[in-house]
Formats: sequence, structure tokens, C-alpha cells
Amino acid sequence: MTKPYGLVLHGGAGVILRKDMSPELEAQYRAKLAEAREAGYAVLESGGSALDAVTATVVILEDSPLFNAGKGAVLNAEGNCELDASIMEGATQAAGAVAGVQHIRNPVRLARDVMEKSPHVMLIGEGAEQFARQLGHELVPNDYFKTEMRRKQLERAQAEERAGRKVGAMPEERLNYDDDGGLLRVNTNKFGTVGCVALDRHGNLAAATSTGGMTNKKFGRVGDAPIIGAGTYANNATCAVSATGWGEFFIRVGVARDIAAQMEYKGAPLAAAADSALAKVAALGGDGGLIAIDRHGHVAMPFNTPGMYRGCRLSDGTQKTEIFSEEK
Amino acid sequence: MTKPYGLVLHGGAGVILRKDMSPELEAQYRAKLAEAREAGYAVLESGGSALDAVTATVVILEDSPLFNAGKGAVLNAEGNCELDASIMEGATQAAGAVAGVQHIRNPVRLARDVMEKSPHVMLIGEGAEQFARQLGHELVPNDYFKTEMRRKQLERAQAEERAGRKVGAMPEERLNYDDDGGLLRVNTNKFGTVGCVALDRHGNLAAATSTGGMTNKKFGRVGDAPIIGAGTYANNATCAVSATGWGEFFIRVGVARDIAAQMEYKGAPLAAAADSALAKVAALGGDGGLIAIDRHGHVAMPFNTPGMYRGCRLSDGTQKTEIFSEEK
Repeated sequence: MTKPYGLVLHGGAGVILRKDMSPELEAQYRAKLAEAREAGYAVLESGGSALDAVTATVVILEDSPLFNAGKGAVLNAEGNCELDASIMEGATQAAGAVAGVQHIRNPVRLARDVMEKSPHVMLIGEGAEQFARQLGHELVPNDYFKTEMRRKQLERAQAEERAGRKVGAMPEERLNYDDDGGLLRVNTNKFGTVGCVALDRHGNLAAATSTGGMTNKKFGRVGDAPIIGAGTYANNATCAVSATGWGEFFIRVGVARDIAAQMEYKGAPLAAAADSALAKVAALGGDGGLIAIDRHGHVAMPFNTPGMYRGCRLSDGTQKTEIFSEEK
Repeated sequence: MTKPYGLVLHGGAGVILRKDMSPELEAQYRAKLAEAREAGYAVLESGGSALDAVTATVVILEDSPLFNAGKGAVLNAEGNCELDASIMEGATQAAGAVAGVQHIRNPVRLARDVMEKSPHVMLIGEGAEQFARQLGHELVPNDYFKTEMRRKQLERAQAEERAGRKVGAMPEERLNYDDDGGLLRVNTNKFGTVGCVALDRHGNLAAATSTGGMTNKKFGRVGDAPIIGAGTYANNATCAVSATGWGEFFIRVGVARDIAAQMEYKGAPLAAAADSALAKVAALGGDGGLIAIDRHGHVAMPFNTPGMYRGCRLSDGTQKTEIFSEEK
């Protein structure tokens, strides 16, 4: 009997409805999710580490303009992309995170370098980019990340704000976009974080998360994606988790850490622990979703939004790429 | 029978030995700890909130050059003070945090404004200061925070670094200061975070933490102080916690959140949960301390360093101001 292995990935949760999505766009999302999933799974299948698998998967999602991370990230109030990412290894509980970087092509790679090549866990802003330069990371102009769709989203958000309907950065869905068809409409999902969790053949877990945050965000706002214990957590004794949602609530609950704690301290099964953590987010008024895998290869991908881009592939043959609620 | 109330505070853990401290300096520390303790306790005694109490106490510690927070914070590699703080309210689990601010006289007050006057939990760098300006916070030149003692510490750290003994920001004690007497010697404690946790007469808990981080820190390094769930956590169902220590390890363990989880999920008493969380930090190779109070008014202030500036005052009459291990 071989040890189970596999991975789960997400491309953000939010208002993702079938009626709003063209067949072409849906096919693009499913194809990219499958590509990212297979890249990570290939690492696992060949005996590679969970850490390498989650990195490979998240890099593909960061490089795709379809998701709110890396290229295609949402724009902040100044019209720039400001990126956050984190990564954690279950065997050592080593972790790395960056927040507020603007010129790092793959923030998840930089988070990993913080973990592996510095004595620190979290670096922010220009300091993090200085560290990246010293390590020879590819620094790209901020324009590399920007897409026309995100420019339009920012324009809408700022028009709403000027009209006094909303002040400051708020989850996009709260801005009530309502008359854009096709691509723009579909991408008004509030939360576009991407992430991956994996269990490798050696029994090691890892988790990674990357995001552009919220459209029209101000004041150096940071959500849960780069916060170890909120958006990302991994511990070989329990599970690996990556969250996506209204970050403020995920931080206050400490979602990822809470799931691991429920498993460790009261023997909760992964799925029950994940549902319970998400219920706490909902009780405070937040929403979103998460993906998780435990040391036995059980997986969970709950969300309380109308949709979540998600997928998984496990050594028992399970293989999924899902978007809408009704596919649950 | 009246409901119990009270507070615990800390001024950092580290290598604090009686043999290194002059009676005059020791008296200064004890007096300032007592002043900060009494300020918070007066709030509680008059029926004020735990949130107001922890704010009042931490502001006094920030304003004192004796501690590594606010005035008297350690200097980063560029010779500037870069401050982090966070605060959390147990009743609502509302939270606020700032990281990497350089001109905010009382970072804990700004963290509280993030919690109360923004839809966000965490703001970083210049963005956080922009938010502060809009709210009319007192912005001070970075020189306001700097003291001669911290300049000397930075010089030493950078000399050590040039000599190749250490690269990058490391906890101060690792730099092996050894031949400075008096004030400088005493203040080579690695971790100078300050914090306070309180239970008020209404049964509400709150926690706050503030720090200047590590001497000679680089790359926008952020420790556990502004990370909700690591350095700070409060939940009326369980406890309020503020940590001080080698921040990277406290983040990886999720110390504050872990203590609350042990109480919630396996019914651990506060002291046992606090000891267990600190043991996890030690198992990974880190050290430090923490303060905690639960909803019944039980308190804990464990540390695994040679000393921790600490104190408490409870409605049962308990009243302490301690520094050294042997006072435990």
C-alpha cells in the first residue's frame, strides 16, 4: 500500500455565477486551473516535495491574468498593483511572507526565499524588494501586472466612491457592479487570492497563498494572504490550509491556524474543522473559502460565496476542476 | 460577589540579569512598570473598558525610553526607528495593526484607529501613515524616537556584522555584547516589545502589543507584534494574550491564537496552555515570553529567557512588578 499524496488549489472565491460567464471564459478558467494542478501534481508524482508542488502551482496562477495575483492583480487606489504572498512547510513549520511588493513577478517565490534564505518570516514593502534584488529576483515594472480589465474595475470602484456610495477600499462585490457583461462582470468576484496545499509522498505538507488584495485599496492595506495562521498554515501533525476571502475576517478568526488547532486539540476531522472555521468567519459577517489537505490525504474546499475557482488531484484517482456552487 | 478584573503588562523578555543592572536603573524600570500598570488599572477600577486600559498602559510604555517601543525603540540598519503594533478586543474580535511606521508617536493608538475607524485590520508603511494623517494623528520626526543608547547598540551590531560574525538582523543577544557596563549592557535584551492584556468589570478582554523590532533590522522585517494570532489575540470566550520574543518563532507557532485554541478545544487552563505554546517556540529553537489573562481573571506570565519586565494588578489584591527569573 502506497502512501497517499495529492494537492488542492484555488483561484479565489466570490460572486461567480454560471449565468454571468461565457462558455469561452469558463473554458479558459478550467484550462488554467487544470494546467496549474497538473504542474504541481507532476512534482508530487515524481517524488518531489509538497513545497515544490505548491510553488509550481501558484507560480502558474500568478502568471495568468485570469486571477488576482501576480499578472492581472487588482489595482490599488493609486492605480498600481501591490502584492502579498506567503508559504509554509509542514515538516519544519518554516514560513515566509511578503506584503506590499510592487515589482516582484512571482511573490510566492520571494516568500519562499524569505523562508529559506533569511532568518525572517515576514518582509514588507521596499525592504522586501531590496532583499529580492540581492538574491537576483526578476524585478519587473509595475505595468507588467496591469490589465485593462483591472483598470476598468478600478475606474468603477472610484466612480462609486466619488458618488459617495462607498468610502475606501471595500470588497469588490460591495461596490455593486451591475451592468458590465462578459469578462468584466465575471471578474467582479470580491476575492481573487490564489493558493495551493499539498501532501507529498514523504508525508510532508505545504501551503502557499498569493494575492493582489482588494481593488482601490488604500493605506497599505494587507489582508490574510501574507499572514501565517490566517491565510496560510501547514503542520505535518495536522494539515495544510490556504484561504481566500474577506481577509479582515480571516485574520480575526485566525482561520488556517484554527483548523489545525481543532484537529490537534479535539481530534476534529479536516472537513468539520474547515467548516467550523468558515462558520466563524460568517458569524462575524465575512465570507470566502479555503482549501485544505491533511496528513492522510483527506481534502476540503468549502466556501460560503456563490463560487470558488478550485481543483484537486489525489493519488487515489480523484481529479476535479470546479467553479460554481452547484458543482459542490 | 463582584466580578474579577485586572491586567498584566510586559516590557520585553531577554537577557536581563540582576548582576548587570544598577540599583538606580532597576528602580527606574520598576517605577515605570508600576506607573503603566496603575494607569491601566485605574481605567478598570472606574468601570472603563479593557480596551481603554490596555491602550493607556501601552502608551506609557511607548513613551518611555526604557523600552523598545515608541520613544527609545531600537534602530534599523538605516539608523531609523520602524515601529509595529496591534490591538484586539475580545467581545467583538475586532482587531487593528500597523507595521513599519516611522512617524507615529503612539503606534498602539494608530492600531486602535485601524480597528475602530477603518474597515481593515492591518495597514503597513507609508500607507498607514497616510491614514494617520487623515485622522489627525500626531506625526513626529523619526528623531523623536531615537536615543543615544540605541545608536550605540546599532553601532555595535553593525561592527559585528562588518567583522563577519553575523549577517543581517539577528536578535540582539546573538550579537554577544559583552563589555558594556551599566545601561547599555542591561538593554542588550533581545526582545523589547511591550504589551498589556486586561479583563474589565464587564467581562470583556483586550490585548495590545507594540515594538521597535530588532536592532539593525533590514528589508522591512516584521515580527510577531503586529500579527494578530501570533503576538496579540483576544477572545472573550477564552483569553487575551500579548507576546514578546524572537518574533519569527512566535509567528510560526501562532502563539497567541494557540493558547486560546487550547483553552477552547481541550479545556486547558490558561497557565498550562501558555506554557505549552511557549514550549513549542522553544522546540523550534526560539525563546521569549508572554502575558495572558482569561475571562475568569486567571493570569500567566511565563518566559524562557533570563528575565522579563512584567507586572500585574488584579481585583483580588494581587499586585506585582517583576524583572528577574528568580522573582517568578
